[in-house]
Amino acid sequence: MNDFTELIQRHRSIRRFKPDGITPEQLNAILRSAQAASTSSNVQAYSVIGVTDSAKKRELAVLAGDQKYVEQCPLFLVWCADLLRLRHACGKQGIEMVHGTMENFIVATVDVSLAAQNAAIAAESMGLGIVYIGGIRNQPREVTRLLQLPELVYPVFGMCIGYPDQDPMPRPRLPLAAVYHENAYSTASFDRAIDEYDVVMREYYRQRTGGKRDTSWSQEMGEKFRQAARKHMRAYLEEQGFGFE
Amino acid sequence: MNDFTELIQRHRSIRRFKPDGITPEQLNAILRSAQAASTSSNVQAYSVIGVTDSAKKRELAVLAGDQKYVEQCPLFLVWCADLLRLRHACGKQGIEMVHGTMENFIVATVDVSLAAQNAAIAAESMGLGIVYIGGIRNQPREVTRLLQLPELVYPVFGMCIGYPDQDPMPRPRLPLAAVYHENAYSTASFDRAIDEYDVVMREYYRQRTGGKRDTSWSQEMGEKFRQAARKHMRAYLEEQGFGFE
Repeated sequence: MNDFTELIQRHRSIRRFKPDGITPEQLNAILRSAQAASTSSNVQAYSVIGVTDSAKKRELAVLAGDQKYVEQCPLFLVWCADLLRLRHACGKQGIEMVHGTMENFIVATVDVSLAAQNAAIAAESMGLGIVYIGGIRNQPREVTRLLQLPELVYPVFGMCIGYPDQDPMPRPRLPLAAVYHENAYSTASFDRAIDEYDVVMREYYRQRTGGKRDTSWSQEMGEKFRQAARKHMRAYLEEQGFGFE
Repeated sequence: MNDFTELIQRHRSIRRFKPDGITPEQLNAILRSAQAASTSSNVQAYSVIGVTDSAKKRELAVLAGDQKYVEQCPLFLVWCADLLRLRHACGKQGIEMVHGTMENFIVATVDVSLAAQNAAIAAESMGLGIVYIGGIRNQPREVTRLLQLPELVYPVFGMCIGYPDQDPMPRPRLPLAAVYHENAYSTASFDRAIDEYDVVMREYYRQRTGGKRDTSWSQEMGEKFRQAARKHMRAYLEEQGFGFE
């Protein structure tokens, strides 16, 4: 372990923030760090909307499922997959971009994720806390209207950034044996790893809720995946001009 | 700038490695760092295959488009989006997982990307170098067979890790104005930003190739996107059991 891996492994999501703002220098360092991430063939297929306007943050907090910290955090970033700038670049060369492929959709979604994770680490290295907001996909059409997102751009997730006003414990992760495989995938460790993790997570939920929440990881996953979530995504993405050929 | 943002911003992909291997402790710290990344509702929808077997690395190098460093690097990681373990967890609860949605596909693809980027930073903090290998999607069926990837698992990208045996300059990025927007998306800066970047990148390509390569970013993007790439992805993903409803 060095200082870096220690910082990375200390990560926990922050959902309560002090009112102190982010300086322009901090924001710049966070964004430069994001840009330094690897990007598929240098396409840089993403854009970031920094939301500082209070009314917009308030509306986004509601759209994301009444997550108050979206409004409360000093800086809310909306990370978008973006093929529009690339189409523009192609247009400058008189070339019509072929964009409607699953491959391009994957590339843009990966690109924005790598950049965002660099931003998260950069922010945490400054003593800031972050939380990813997948709830930005709850009502993507409204988010699109609010942030004036054009075609070929979609909001993949949001990110609250600010100084932590809480100090939660990191959430335990699956046993490494369930996630890492050498030379070939194997399901051999699944049963035992999930059972072990269920015990760990039951204890974690109890501790975090003062004994009120009695559940396990596989129970939580069962509840989550027993129905389809965000069934609007495919149609929304097509409205935005994405294709999946 | 602090040590962390400096490290992050010094990133450049490494494509030539010393023979020195990665210790088990290093690998462990890299994987623990990966696991510490944020994950949508704690689903942890990814798996990592560490390829150390020489014959498999050699085959993967060919499959990824004859990228010699895939064979040469001491450790090659294949980062997979994974919904299978979740289906298994649901099964333990007697629940049939609904997995065939665009939303779940996005969640898994984002989850694996966040984890991988943590691994990249962790590796670089130890003096190691990395390069992402999107070429792993060139022939995904063969990769799937070679690594025995089951249904509901797909290889999103590879990653070479090892001690750098080269010291390339970081590749310049788009002007921040083209990537970052405050409160609403705007295309106003596109033209100027792309023109500026084209000049910077032309100079970068010239320097890197001793004057042999005379091209710009928008020229490269035009060449890349004038035809569809990896047109097999959609069908392959459906064969693996992914759905996009």
